[in-house]
Amino acid sequence: MSELRQDVTTREWVIISTERARRPHEFSPAQAGQEPAALPEYSETCPFCLGNEALTPGELFALREEGKRDDPSWQVRVIPNKFPALRGESEPTRLHEGMFRGVNGFGYHEVVIETPLHNREMALMEVSEVKKVVGVFHARYEAMRSDPRVKLIVIFKNHGRTAGTSLEHPHSQIVAVPIIPGGVRARIEVAQRHHDDNGECVYCSLLEEELRARKRIVLEAEGFVAFHPFASRVPFETWIMPRTHNTSFGDLQKNECRAVASVLKSILAKLHQGLQNPDFNLILQSAPVEDEDTPYYHWHIQIFPRLTLQAGFELGSGIYINSALPEETAAFLREIPEPAPAK
Amino acid sequence: MSELRQDVTTREWVIISTERARRPHEFSPAQAGQEPAALPEYSETCPFCLGNEALTPGELFALREEGKRDDPSWQVRVIPNKFPALRGESEPTRLHEGMFRGVNGFGYHEVVIETPLHNREMALMEVSEVKKVVGVFHARYEAMRSDPRVKLIVIFKNHGRTAGTSLEHPHSQIVAVPIIPGGVRARIEVAQRHHDDNGECVYCSLLEEELRARKRIVLEAEGFVAFHPFASRVPFETWIMPRTHNTSFGDLQKNECRAVASVLKSILAKLHQGLQNPDFNLILQSAPVEDEDTPYYHWHIQIFPRLTLQAGFELGSGIYINSALPEETAAFLREIPEPAPAK
Repeated sequence: MSELRQDVTTREWVIISTERARRPHEFSPAQAGQEPAALPEYSETCPFCLGNEALTPGELFALREEGKRDDPSWQVRVIPNKFPALRGESEPTRLHEGMFRGVNGFGYHEVVIETPLHNREMALMEVSEVKKVVGVFHARYEAMRSDPRVKLIVIFKNHGRTAGTSLEHPHSQIVAVPIIPGGVRARIEVAQRHHDDNGECVYCSLLEEELRARKRIVLEAEGFVAFHPFASRVPFETWIMPRTHNTSFGDLQKNECRAVASVLKSILAKLHQGLQNPDFNLILQSAPVEDEDTPYYHWHIQIFPRLTLQAGFELGSGIYINSALPEETAAFLREIPEPAPAK
Repeated sequence: MSELRQDVTTREWVIISTERARRPHEFSPAQAGQEPAALPEYSETCPFCLGNEALTPGELFALREEGKRDDPSWQVRVIPNKFPALRGESEPTRLHEGMFRGVNGFGYHEVVIETPLHNREMALMEVSEVKKVVGVFHARYEAMRSDPRVKLIVIFKNHGRTAGTSLEHPHSQIVAVPIIPGGVRARIEVAQRHHDDNGECVYCSLLEEELRARKRIVLEAEGFVAFHPFASRVPFETWIMPRTHNTSFGDLQKNECRAVASVLKSILAKLHQGLQNPDFNLILQSAPVEDEDTPYYHWHIQIFPRLTLQAGFELGSGIYINSALPEETAAFLREIPEPAPAK
């Protein structure tokens, strides 16, 4: 029989649909992406490839040889999005017209080019390379949060065409917005209420329960735990959570970068191996800037594979229908060996 | 410059991204579906085609010749979903395990086969045929809401592969759930608060403002207005709203069926013509059963074309990036002539 499950951090529901249930190994073939190995190291027309720096807007930040800029000596490179959803030039001015409310398009929209190589997917990197990307995320997060007009910073990665990207070259994006969206506010309120009622962080409690239940853990490592949440919205949804309570990704310490990179790399490698390079979205969930010093929130990473489509029911009700049991997908992924990093 | 806009009914934000802006006519080709005219009237393997009744579970309801059942004398036919997300057999029992909360999979999941003909899309039907489908929606809604275990009834249609359906034969679905999801609760709370503060329904106010602004109206008809909302999440998002305040779709009167069918048919025909048969989701938003007698909510139809993909940013923040101006898409669709119904 199917089961409705509630996500304790959002109060949203999912239907775990056993009628449509597929075994974990049945998810891979339909949506399999192109093997990174089949891609070239360099593509002449790719604006993110080493040597093609002139094809992008001027860089904002990079790990590179000192004193250089926009030349091919970089390892990780940050540029403005060529078609930014938001721009940093103006003050965020409120717009009112009758009952309609708006804000002009203030914000930041940056692209993090994760590697000079066209085919070096994060799943197949060395941990030391992923660590550099995480370090750059953190540096840009810090830079954006120092702007008092910024309310929320969203770091995310779209991998593969069905996940919303058309550029193959490994990259992530960072968007800073001047408002706090309703869904994020709702998560904060749930966490706040849980803290009011229980005197503890709902994510800390959840992690403790997942570790006690031991049914949905994929990986336990120093400092971080990866698991498939009880109310997973999609097959193989994976959360990577710091064991230590930290409200904001901004709180990440230099010496923790390696630990998060190591778990992230392992999970992406296992997904790559177990599901044949599936399309996915990766989202770094962190508190809004104004809530960074509260005890309520707990930053974490959510990986959302795009193995199934969301349709009218999800759009209309907010209830996802998940055709896999997180207990089964977690067990499957636990056993998948990590492929070795690409040469 | 881009603009952030807030949906006054959900408090959610969208970014109307002018940097990525496409003109309304640029949206059609990429996602164009198969022309219904190119499909056969009958497909031997289609379980929804006339004469293939034996390929489906036994019918629950139909507009058909009296005294018959599961034979080819029907016009609109309702069957249980062959792989139901939820089943009506058991009591909705709450499940607790530590802090995890669930409910066993009680509910209903039905399929409405809108026409005996494989290629007779709603966009190309006569109004009288659409009216029959709306009447059947209403009859099933009434049947489900008489079950005291049902909390919310979601009527929706997935049209086309990227909208989540693999069956070409025109059909809709109805799901009844034993819980009220967080997003629906949030909408009710916004409406309630607006009513507390202003003494009026937020949807009535919104409709009045849209009619005053006259910038986003697609179609004004007797009893119903179709418009592209100020904070449209996706290009060509269309809402069809009753002019009269009615909380629940259950309140629809027999004599209103034709009016809603007429507007719905016109909008689908215009989208079909203007965007070359785009994939879309259609959602009938109605109040939860327990709120049907409150003055807060206002049932309406939302049409959500799948012309663009939602990616990590949308998933992580709940903020949609819309690359079209609703003022422009509404103007475009207003001018599109309705194709004549198919013969």
